[in-house]
Amino acid sequence: MNMAEKQLLSFQVDEQFDLFLLLKGADVKTAKNGKQFIRMTFEDPSGELSGNFWDATDQDIATFEPGKVVLVRGKKELYQGNSQLKIMNLRLANTSEPNDPSQYVAHGPMTRAEMEESVSNIIFEITEPTWNRVVRTLLQRHADDFYNFPAAKKNHHAFAGGLAYHTISIVRLAKTVADLHPNIDRSLLYSGALLHDLGKTIELSGPISTTYTLAGNLIGHIVLIDEEIVNVCQELHFDPESEEMLLLRHMILAHHGLLEYGSPVRPHLLEAEVLHDLDELDASIQMMSTAVEHTEPGDFSERIFGLDGRNFYRPTASKTNQSEDD
Amino acid sequence: MNMAEKQLLSFQVDEQFDLFLLLKGADVKTAKNGKQFIRMTFEDPSGELSGNFWDATDQDIATFEPGKVVLVRGKKELYQGNSQLKIMNLRLANTSEPNDPSQYVAHGPMTRAEMEESVSNIIFEITEPTWNRVVRTLLQRHADDFYNFPAAKKNHHAFAGGLAYHTISIVRLAKTVADLHPNIDRSLLYSGALLHDLGKTIELSGPISTTYTLAGNLIGHIVLIDEEIVNVCQELHFDPESEEMLLLRHMILAHHGLLEYGSPVRPHLLEAEVLHDLDELDASIQMMSTAVEHTEPGDFSERIFGLDGRNFYRPTASKTNQSEDD
Amino acid sequence: MNMAEKQLLSFQVDEQFDLFLLLKGADVKTAKNGKQFIRMTFEDPSGELSGNFWDATDQDIATFEPGKVVLVRGKKELYQGNSQLKIMNLRLANTSEPNDPSQYVAHGPMTRAEMEESVSNIIFEITEPTWNRVVRTLLQRHADDFYNFPAAKKNHHAFAGGLAYHTISIVRLAKTVADLHPNIDRSLLYSGALLHDLGKTIELSGPISTTYTLAGNLIGHIVLIDEEIVNVCQELHFDPESEEMLLLRHMILAHHGLLEYGSPVRPHLLEAEVLHDLDELDASIQMMSTAVEHTEPGDFSERIFGLDGRNFYRPTASKTNQSEDD
Amino acid sequence: MNMAEKQLLSFQVDEQFDLFLLLKGADVKTAKNGKQFIRMTFEDPSGELSGNFWDATDQDIATFEPGKVVLVRGKKELYQGNSQLKIMNLRLANTSEPNDPSQYVAHGPMTRAEMEESVSNIIFEITEPTWNRVVRTLLQRHADDFYNFPAAKKNHHAFAGGLAYHTISIVRLAKTVADLHPNIDRSLLYSGALLHDLGKTIELSGPISTTYTLAGNLIGHIVLIDEEIVNVCQELHFDPESEEMLLLRHMILAHHGLLEYGSPVRPHLLEAEVLHDLDELDASIQMMSTAVEHTEPGDFSERIFGLDGRNFYRPTASKTNQSEDD
Amino acid sequence: MNMAEKQLLSFQVDEQFDLFLLLKGADVKTAKNGKQFIRMTFEDPSGELSGNFWDATDQDIATFEPGKVVLVRGKKELYQGNSQLKIMNLRLANTSEPNDPSQYVAHGPMTRAEMEESVSNIIFEITEPTWNRVVRTLLQRHADDFYNFPAAKKNHHAFAGGLAYHTISIVRLAKTVADLHPNIDRSLLYSGALLHDLGKTIELSGPISTTYTLAGNLIGHIVLIDEEIVNVCQELHFDPESEEMLLLRHMILAHHGLLEYGSPVRPHLLEAEVLHDLDELDASIQMMSTAVEHTEPGDFSERIFGLDGRNFYRPTASKTNQSEDD
Amino acid sequence: MNMAEKQLLSFQVDEQFDLFLLLKGADVKTAKNGKQFIRMTFEDPSGELSGNFWDATDQDIATFEPGKVVLVRGKKELYQGNSQLKIMNLRLANTSEPNDPSQYVAHGPMTRAEMEESVSNIIFEITEPTWNRVVRTLLQRHADDFYNFPAAKKNHHAFAGGLAYHTISIVRLAKTVADLHPNIDRSLLYSGALLHDLGKTIELSGPISTTYTLAGNLIGHIVLIDEEIVNVCQELHFDPESEEMLLLRHMILAHHGLLEYGSPVRPHLLEAEVLHDLDELDASIQMMSTAVEHTEPGDFSERIFGLDGRNFYRPTASKTNQSEDD
Repeated sequence: MNMAEKQLLSFQVDEQFDLFLLLKGADVKTAKNGKQFIRMTFEDPSGELSGNFWDATDQDIATFEPGKVVLVRGKKELYQGNSQLKIMNLRLANTSEPNDPSQYVAHGPMTRAEMEESVSNIIFEITEPTWNRVVRTLLQRHADDFYNFPAAKKNHHAFAGGLAYHTISIVRLAKTVADLHPNIDRSLLYSGALLHDLGKTIELSGPISTTYTLAGNLIGHIVLIDEEIVNVCQELHFDPESEEMLLLRHMILAHHGLLEYGSPVRPHLLEAEVLHDLDELDASIQMMSTAVEHTEPGDFSERIFGLDGRNFYRPTASKTNQSEDD
Repeated sequence: MNMAEKQLLSFQVDEQFDLFLLLKGADVKTAKNGKQFIRMTFEDPSGELSGNFWDATDQDIATFEPGKVVLVRGKKELYQGNSQLKIMNLRLANTSEPNDPSQYVAHGPMTRAEMEESVSNIIFEITEPTWNRVVRTLLQRHADDFYNFPAAKKNHHAFAGGLAYHTISIVRLAKTVADLHPNIDRSLLYSGALLHDLGKTIELSGPISTTYTLAGNLIGHIVLIDEEIVNVCQELHFDPESEEMLLLRHMILAHHGLLEYGSPVRPHLLEAEVLHDLDELDASIQMMSTAVEHTEPGDFSERIFGLDGRNFYRPTASKTNQSEDD
Repeated sequence: MNMAEKQLLSFQVDEQFDLFLLLKGADVKTAKNGKQFIRMTFEDPSGELSGNFWDATDQDIATFEPGKVVLVRGKKELYQGNSQLKIMNLRLANTSEPNDPSQYVAHGPMTRAEMEESVSNIIFEITEPTWNRVVRTLLQRHADDFYNFPAAKKNHHAFAGGLAYHTISIVRLAKTVADLHPNIDRSLLYSGALLHDLGKTIELSGPISTTYTLAGNLIGHIVLIDEEIVNVCQELHFDPESEEMLLLRHMILAHHGLLEYGSPVRPHLLEAEVLHDLDELDASIQMMSTAVEHTEPGDFSERIFGLDGRNFYRPTASKTNQSEDD
Repeated sequence: MNMAEKQLLSFQVDEQFDLFLLLKGADVKTAKNGKQFIRMTFEDPSGELSGNFWDATDQDIATFEPGKVVLVRGKKELYQGNSQLKIMNLRLANTSEPNDPSQYVAHGPMTRAEMEESVSNIIFEITEPTWNRVVRTLLQRHADDFYNFPAAKKNHHAFAGGLAYHTISIVRLAKTVADLHPNIDRSLLYSGALLHDLGKTIELSGPISTTYTLAGNLIGHIVLIDEEIVNVCQELHFDPESEEMLLLRHMILAHHGLLEYGSPVRPHLLEAEVLHDLDELDASIQMMSTAVEHTEPGDFSERIFGLDGRNFYRPTASKTNQSEDD
Repeated sequence: MNMAEKQLLSFQVDEQFDLFLLLKGADVKTAKNGKQFIRMTFEDPSGELSGNFWDATDQDIATFEPGKVVLVRGKKELYQGNSQLKIMNLRLANTSEPNDPSQYVAHGPMTRAEMEESVSNIIFEITEPTWNRVVRTLLQRHADDFYNFPAAKKNHHAFAGGLAYHTISIVRLAKTVADLHPNIDRSLLYSGALLHDLGKTIELSGPISTTYTLAGNLIGHIVLIDEEIVNVCQELHFDPESEEMLLLRHMILAHHGLLEYGSPVRPHLLEAEVLHDLDELDASIQMMSTAVEHTEPGDFSERIFGLDGRNFYRPTASKTNQSEDD
Repeated sequence: MNMAEKQLLSFQVDEQFDLFLLLKGADVKTAKNGKQFIRMTFEDPSGELSGNFWDATDQDIATFEPGKVVLVRGKKELYQGNSQLKIMNLRLANTSEPNDPSQYVAHGPMTRAEMEESVSNIIFEITEPTWNRVVRTLLQRHADDFYNFPAAKKNHHAFAGGLAYHTISIVRLAKTVADLHPNIDRSLLYSGALLHDLGKTIELSGPISTTYTLAGNLIGHIVLIDEEIVNVCQELHFDPESEEMLLLRHMILAHHGLLEYGSPVRPHLLEAEVLHDLDELDASIQMMSTAVEHTEPGDFSERIFGLDGRNFYRPTASKTNQSEDD
């Protein structure tokens, strides 16, 4: 068995493997028989897979902490049409073995350098000067987190760099929308898109074993970044009550679309409604794509919490590929 | 006063005019004082404007029927920040005057020829052969209506050709989405987009004084076009229970997204969810754009029924234009 | 122990038995300790009872498939006031033993012959000729399934022939309603009642181990039968846009009453509202009756999912019987 | 014009008449021009029709009080597909003219004597002795009101005797249901049906110009009759905490089905759920029938508040009559 | 008629008067007959009363602007059990007449000096030093507005100084609650109470003819004051991410209780839930008291929008007074 | 180990103890591995703590019945931030050991004598004579239960005497409210407060192992006490339809505030709305306080069902204590 040749998501069902993997998550749970088990999530650059480590001792719990590289003997198995990892053997990687966690993190389709260039180009198109400076200042201040954080704790774009990638995807859609509808203010839409989720760098603890911070729980990412905009205004001597700044803050505050989803105000600007719609669209596609990828052709995926518990069908023949081939 | 020089929406508030206009709608209402008035909507290629014709006699009601060209003396006035037409004098155009209704209908930004070419190009990209034939057959059968009907009775794309224009706009957005997400089946998404609202040609009475037909009221456009797909299958000897046909029908049936909005089934295909999202996005933008256009800078628009009664702010300085100029 | 004497639901709590039973359902589940168990449902003509088969091996799972006749040693026990089957021993019936599944299926109170005669009489009362032919054609085409399918996967009338029996019960109620209200169109109400759930023969897989078909999941039984009506119109050269056919299709499409329950249009005909109400009434009574039957006098039944999770009280003394005896 | 020959609802649209009618309702409203008008409802045994009396003086308001017989010159006119009365002239009937209000009240299809006999027969079938005595006592105590009150202020069965007629209709349906489902306790279902709305005799002011009493507003008819049941128990020395009395009170308390509709507890008895369903069914049919009767064939009725604002279609050809003739 | 002797709310129904009053509100509306009228609200220290000025000319609209003192001849009349002002004559007060608007504004039961002392005492009880300084700084900065603004545009405490009075009332209730529950952090609860609605000084335009500012419409008072807290932290060199500041900001952000009511986060602190409950309680009582005061004994008040459209009964005998007398 | 020295809630995490405790609750559950366990709740005057007794035999289930005194060897452990009891050994107390259950029941902060005096003082302030007599009669009739029952099965004030303590707390808040708002009828508010939950003495089975009675399930505590008021009227020869009695009954019937929460009518009296608000406020505080007490500083409590599943943060430093000390 040549370990280097295949990655986690390339194995077939029931094909056994020994792999070094990052232990991304490890939730201790108590079974109804009183014994503990650990719900583990493993990751390598090909993606992630979860499985249960049964009858865990206190020693196991202390040993298998998220963020460690582990050597796993196991196989992919199907559970109600969806794939999970059956753990057959597990130990920590020792110092003579590959054990650098950063080598096992799944990334999005773009490198950080590519994303930075893309963001730089977008900022160039923000021609309104005060928005341009506010956006530039805040992205600079949070740059490392912006390019490393996931876009959400688990629902969508839950990979390293997912926050920046999700942001760039929205701007790409926004360009097409603005091309079709010249009455849209591109500067405002792009500024809002770049900042809309930046508060997640304060709301979330980081890219590994992501949890909510106290600020995240008590304030929430929407208001956290809005407050920073106002602070930047103070630093740059911009009037926070100017129409420009009210418009920009409204873009961020309204981007969840509905009060029920945590926006303190609903969108009352064309651009704010568009930002909300594109944010939802991109998140939905990412959630559905991930779910369908983990599903066998001809089956329904597991139910997606973030899409009202719906499951999605994976057709038996991939029409796309056919048409691509033609 | 040179009538030919300016069109309906080009006049300033309180600037009086004499214009030949199409009487697009004429709803007779009874005021609480027992007298009748007519809520009239006037149209020319620049757009439409509504106003009340007070103290209407039975003779007036019989004379001023929708679809007639009329000569209006009036002016634009503001009512709670929104513009309406104050009718000062009104009579039918006589036979020696311009009186061809088709010259006064507002159209979308594309001509029929342009739209036909655009649709033809889209169909070319549907590489799955059975979907291609079903789409081609149904669009051919309803071609005249498809290129002349509005997309809705009044909420959005309520202009001649709005149905086809709305359809094409969705496909344009769909292309960008598919470029960003190669796992999307373009053939399926485009087929669904082209057919999704075609049932409106049966649900609605036509482009002028649009009402619902009995079939529209009792069946609804979603099921009406779904039934036609099944009938076309019978004609073309395609199995309606094949996976391909189930997928296509699901695209149409699910495109309202929620059961509460009249879809008998929620989207359970990635492409169906995307179609629903793009449909809403395009309709929302069109509704907001129309409302904001009728609003003075620095004011809020009237409340939009189709967007939960929200009103939208028109910023004082058009940022878009600035950035366009740069 | 004489096996022939008593049937499944006739035993007292804690009274041990050996019985040949049909294994109606067998859902494999994983307990939180990682071991598998099978949630089994057993059936004989007296009704059905469920119980868990613990610590199931892969061999057990392969052996105990739904549709097989098994020999069960067990007893009825109470779990939170409701009865379940404690499995003490279990094996497949061998070839020398009774093993014909059809002998163990629970049926409704009418035989197929009785139901066929009843349906035939109802059709006779449909005096509108086009409805009569559409109904006759469709019932003939799906006759075997119509008289063998359950009315639902599990909620109500989940016995063989339940679909036809549920349909006939609705018509009986409909007659009383029409007697009380002569303005009701009997032909329309009976036609709608006969066809309203016929789409379930396409939506569901069959009477044993019932699941949803792909057509059921992506289209749903309401639209599936509506499409067939339109196809039959094509065959019989009836105009599907005639008022008669629109009325009939509306009866079917609206019978779930609310958009949230999957009807693409709400009832806008007196007869459609009545059909919806009677459908709900009959399903509710069947669900409540089954739940109360499985409950001891003086206890509350288990909660019924299809009735908002309510439980129902079984009075200590059966008043009905007293009054019947008098 | 021979007044005696035709009644209110027999006239064609635009056919002028002079009729003595009961002024059933007279709501004074202020038009937006500051002038008052009276929304009048006229009634004779054929039914009722409403119309506006414009520009009413204080004198008019004092004169035209509900309960008076008036001489009306007017005609039936259509307003948005529904009929209303255009008032051309109006004065009080004088002492030498027919002016007995009781001659002009619309009644249901049964006389009081018929209803009394029917109720008497139902009570005979209540074989549980304590329920029988409670029902008998309460119906006797409220007999005059029970046979004269409407079933609701305006939504349904809003005619004299409507309360008793609605009650009897429910019992007729209940009999069919009990015939189909022998596990239903007839005594309980009939007892609940007979008492369920009896509290309306306390909640409402009476059959003419019906308003809510203070007890109706602050307590509501459901609790008002429940309290009387408990009081009757005290008088008859029945234990109100006996299971029999708890069951009976539950029937009444739960009959609105949902907490949102004012029942303090949801149905937790099979018979209570059935009573609720039949109550809704009978009320719905009565509302729809009245609305459709006031609608021209081929039109939709006005929207019915009590049925979620839905309107109902009246088919062009009355199928019922055809089939009746056959 | 001696003007000085009686104030607006002291007159009986139908008792005519000539009074100088402040024109507090003047909304121009168009009646359905096309004519304009002005919905006017008049005020003096005894309270306010509304009435319609019919058939208003453009001249009238220009003249009667909110904020002017006017001389009114009129009388109080009842409209559906509630009192309104019938305007018989109206003109502006001239320069030789009393025309100082500030003399006609209704105030709450406390003077500004009393309120300032009360607030000062509350601040003294905030023993946590950083909260004390933030509260002190912000109240000082907005002092004039805090003691002059109403608490809401119209629903409750809509009098000058209502904002401060509402705030003080909440703290009084808070003291009793904290006395009963010693685990409550008084410093936190009082700090939150003092700041919770301070953002209304930015959200609203001022005490007369109150409208929403652009900041109010696009950001909302909850976030507006939260942003100021963060800015004050910057000035005072407090860490805005310290637990103390997160707790304080959470108190403000969560005080509407539900996301649907505009809080971006629900209360997750005992003190935040209590603040929300007391805020609602005090606002409800103020709304109900005002409505009941305008109602005759034995009648129901008009429906209160802010309390789900409920109306409230005013008992015939004021029990309170009796018991007070005893 | 000296048992007498410390009580249940005084032990630190992981500090082992042997204690006599009351077994307050014992719910038998089946683990997914088919074995039974008992979810036990232990109580002494310091409060209560729950823990699981794994692998329970039928003998264990028969032995460990709620209401028994047991000797427990165990320790407090943390489970997801909340404390629970780990059971290491368990047996019934024998006859020579302390085994009087009443010595182990947790009580509220007031003794019965204190509560009786407090209630007596409140009744003294009810100056309306008929309310005074009704309240006095009903409290006397249910006195033992009123001072011994909990206020709810488990959500709040679930300790012996909780019902009376909750009632008294509401009246204390009511006094402050009435002091601030002199238009409130104190007699009515106090009468309603004293009776509002008295029906729980009929709805619930008693203070130990509390369940719902059949009357509780089928009628509910709101209507149960309302019926008793009407019966007391009969005994005292008060007219139940007098305004006074309607007001009092309305106070009780409306006190859940919303129909969805089981009130058959919403509050339509100022005092009824205040009673509802104070009832909710007091219950919320009690629930939050209990949850926070069981939480470590710096953690979030477990989610509270009765507060929409929210969890509450316990700050790291108890601000209250600091300010109390100053």
